[in-house]
Amino acid sequence: MGISPKDICLGLEEVRKTSPLVHNITNYVVMNTTANALLAVGASPVMAHAVEEVEDMTSLARALVINIGTLSERWVEAMISSARKADELGIPVVLDPVGAGATSYRTETCHTLLDSCTPAVIRGNASEIMALATGAAKTKGVDSSDPSEAALEAAKRLNENTGSTVCISGAVDYIVDGDRVISVKNGHPMMACITGMGCTSSALCGAFVAVNSSFPDAAAEAMTVMGIAGEIAAERCKGPSSMQIAFLDTLFCLSEDDITRRVNAGENQ
Amino acid sequence: MGISPKDICLGLEEVRKTSPLVHNITNYVVMNTTANALLAVGASPVMAHAVEEVEDMTSLARALVINIGTLSERWVEAMISSARKADELGIPVVLDPVGAGATSYRTETCHTLLDSCTPAVIRGNASEIMALATGAAKTKGVDSSDPSEAALEAAKRLNENTGSTVCISGAVDYIVDGDRVISVKNGHPMMACITGMGCTSSALCGAFVAVNSSFPDAAAEAMTVMGIAGEIAAERCKGPSSMQIAFLDTLFCLSEDDITRRVNAGENQ
Amino acid sequence: MGISPKDICLGLEEVRKTSPLVHNITNYVVMNTTANALLAVGASPVMAHAVEEVEDMTSLARALVINIGTLSERWVEAMISSARKADELGIPVVLDPVGAGATSYRTETCHTLLDSCTPAVIRGNASEIMALATGAAKTKGVDSSDPSEAALEAAKRLNENTGSTVCISGAVDYIVDGDRVISVKNGHPMMACITGMGCTSSALCGAFVAVNSSFPDAAAEAMTVMGIAGEIAAERCKGPSSMQIAFLDTLFCLSEDDITRRVNAGENQ
Repeated sequence: MGISPKDICLGLEEVRKTSPLVHNITNYVVMNTTANALLAVGASPVMAHAVEEVEDMTSLARALVINIGTLSERWVEAMISSARKADELGIPVVLDPVGAGATSYRTETCHTLLDSCTPAVIRGNASEIMALATGAAKTKGVDSSDPSEAALEAAKRLNENTGSTVCISGAVDYIVDGDRVISVKNGHPMMACITGMGCTSSALCGAFVAVNSSFPDAAAEAMTVMGIAGEIAAERCKGPSSMQIAFLDTLFCLSEDDITRRVNAGENQ
Repeated sequence: MGISPKDICLGLEEVRKTSPLVHNITNYVVMNTTANALLAVGASPVMAHAVEEVEDMTSLARALVINIGTLSERWVEAMISSARKADELGIPVVLDPVGAGATSYRTETCHTLLDSCTPAVIRGNASEIMALATGAAKTKGVDSSDPSEAALEAAKRLNENTGSTVCISGAVDYIVDGDRVISVKNGHPMMACITGMGCTSSALCGAFVAVNSSFPDAAAEAMTVMGIAGEIAAERCKGPSSMQIAFLDTLFCLSEDDITRRVNAGENQ
Repeated sequence: MGISPKDICLGLEEVRKTSPLVHNITNYVVMNTTANALLAVGASPVMAHAVEEVEDMTSLARALVINIGTLSERWVEAMISSARKADELGIPVVLDPVGAGATSYRTETCHTLLDSCTPAVIRGNASEIMALATGAAKTKGVDSSDPSEAALEAAKRLNENTGSTVCISGAVDYIVDGDRVISVKNGHPMMACITGMGCTSSALCGAFVAVNSSFPDAAAEAMTVMGIAGEIAAERCKGPSSMQIAFLDTLFCLSEDDITRRVNAGENQ
């Protein structure tokens, strides 16, 4: 068993064909690149964060991505309103807990958001997933040098507590849901030298959960597409900035053949 | 009659020679790319949105661009203050009603702005122009699949109601003012796969109205320059992200010869 | 005497080896590019601006960069809190007074920040440095056509008044501290056609002061690295946007040989 190239191609085809509207409440640093990544993969991004309109915008969308990278009070209010509205309407939510564990404010905001909705997917690095699973408000700094494996137990606990598919990204990505653990080994180390690559993978999870009600499969497809585009981009660039450009170009052009030849994902229960 | 390559070249030359300061109150997603587009075309961009300083900043500028892509309460206040100040001082305003019709908040904010100033140019896609012309607060979703032609009557009505030159962008761009309808057929479909291309065209309208008091001509010149740079970029890229880079490089290098050979614009009353 | 290629290489090596966390409270326009520049040079950027968490985040960092490019009330509060916390903990602060002198709000905010901490480095263009040194709230517009030389006396006065190393950037960069005046002649005129290049140099100053307690040396090293990467990028690009990409790629790949062959800096007391 496992995630097959055919499933990934079908998921990508569905995103491209239906161009789902993905509502993003995300951080200032990555807004431009995640909007471009969603366009490149075939989805239709919208950004809106005013409490006056977020419920209206979420209602129009087929997925909601909440990313806490540059929080402030009014944004947290808007995230909560959107999360509740999405939950009420059955619109899948992706939560990216950027920097959870680094400051109490971030960890606590994540817990409030988890009280407001059941995300389809929670995607973070090992440090962030461990911070959310332990419940401690402040665990460590911003940098996550922990390998993704270190957070596997935490991911299982977080999945049990929340009911959300949990995705730990790193050199190997793990998608954890119930008895399922999918591992994705695609990607390239230089992706860590580009700001917002984690945020981009959360945005792509948004595009894939919009068209696939099996959230672990959707997350695995998104992470594989992400990793394969990263590998191809790494072969065509001269450094991290030209890699960012090549990554988005590749997302746009990604073929069934690229996916079939490169996919390196498996499932072991 | 119509818009001649010579006029476009003179407009661009004037922007490059005088480097007008363009004050932008715009959305988070596109700030970086529109600032770079203004620099590339030869203008001098400034971004400022605090109520404490927007009037001062607008007073220094030769044009004001208001883009409602990521609204919130304090930003709306600042937009209104700036719009009033610009109107008072005779500084031309470009309004980009991003997402008007998608949420009541956006449509209503546009109407408030239209009560606060008479924009030199209102530039939007067909859906946004129709939303503003009907006066209905909430008309449809975010996506505009309507061709620009569909909004021609709405544009005429909006022009009559406001006195503003109305520019509908799409596969063909239309600039509507009184009896004049200028059509610009330059551009490339892949421009729709890059976030903020519409916002960039509004920013360029800002640069051109800063140096030309005939607003329909200025808007047509801006849209033609935009479209020609897009065409050239499409020939030099491998996907939407390298197209964005090539687009900005091309704006910077655009020659009289490029314009003369490619311009595809006409005027039919 | 002066700044030697060896010192610059050692500074860069130290940044790459220790990857210092640099906390940025900066403007919306440049967040993405300065985060990528910090990653490219080997540092670890974090952006956070909520009053609820800025002190926590600053406490984790090895340098704080405050850039006032897109101010508003709550951001000013956060900047002040972070500046005080950094001062208390001995964490070096870099202040980028974007647009000081253009509006009273910007100039006054700078003075409040200078009352809240002693920056390690104040980096601005000639116009901004002169605005801060005179104490006048509103001196001139946004554009700085003044050469950096014009601000040398102002820089000396500002250094005396504040105790901060003052860096004037321009065709020639000057780093002023006490009796020391270091001049850096690296760079390329097309850098002025890319938004946020000044902000990026302030961010790099943050990375270098994080690892070097001699602030004038750190600032000179940062400005030299900046200028050399700009020169190399200018040779490899087709316009300002591909130059931005080449600049970041070059920062990432910059070698001892690049530095040794190109450094053009001197010190005259």
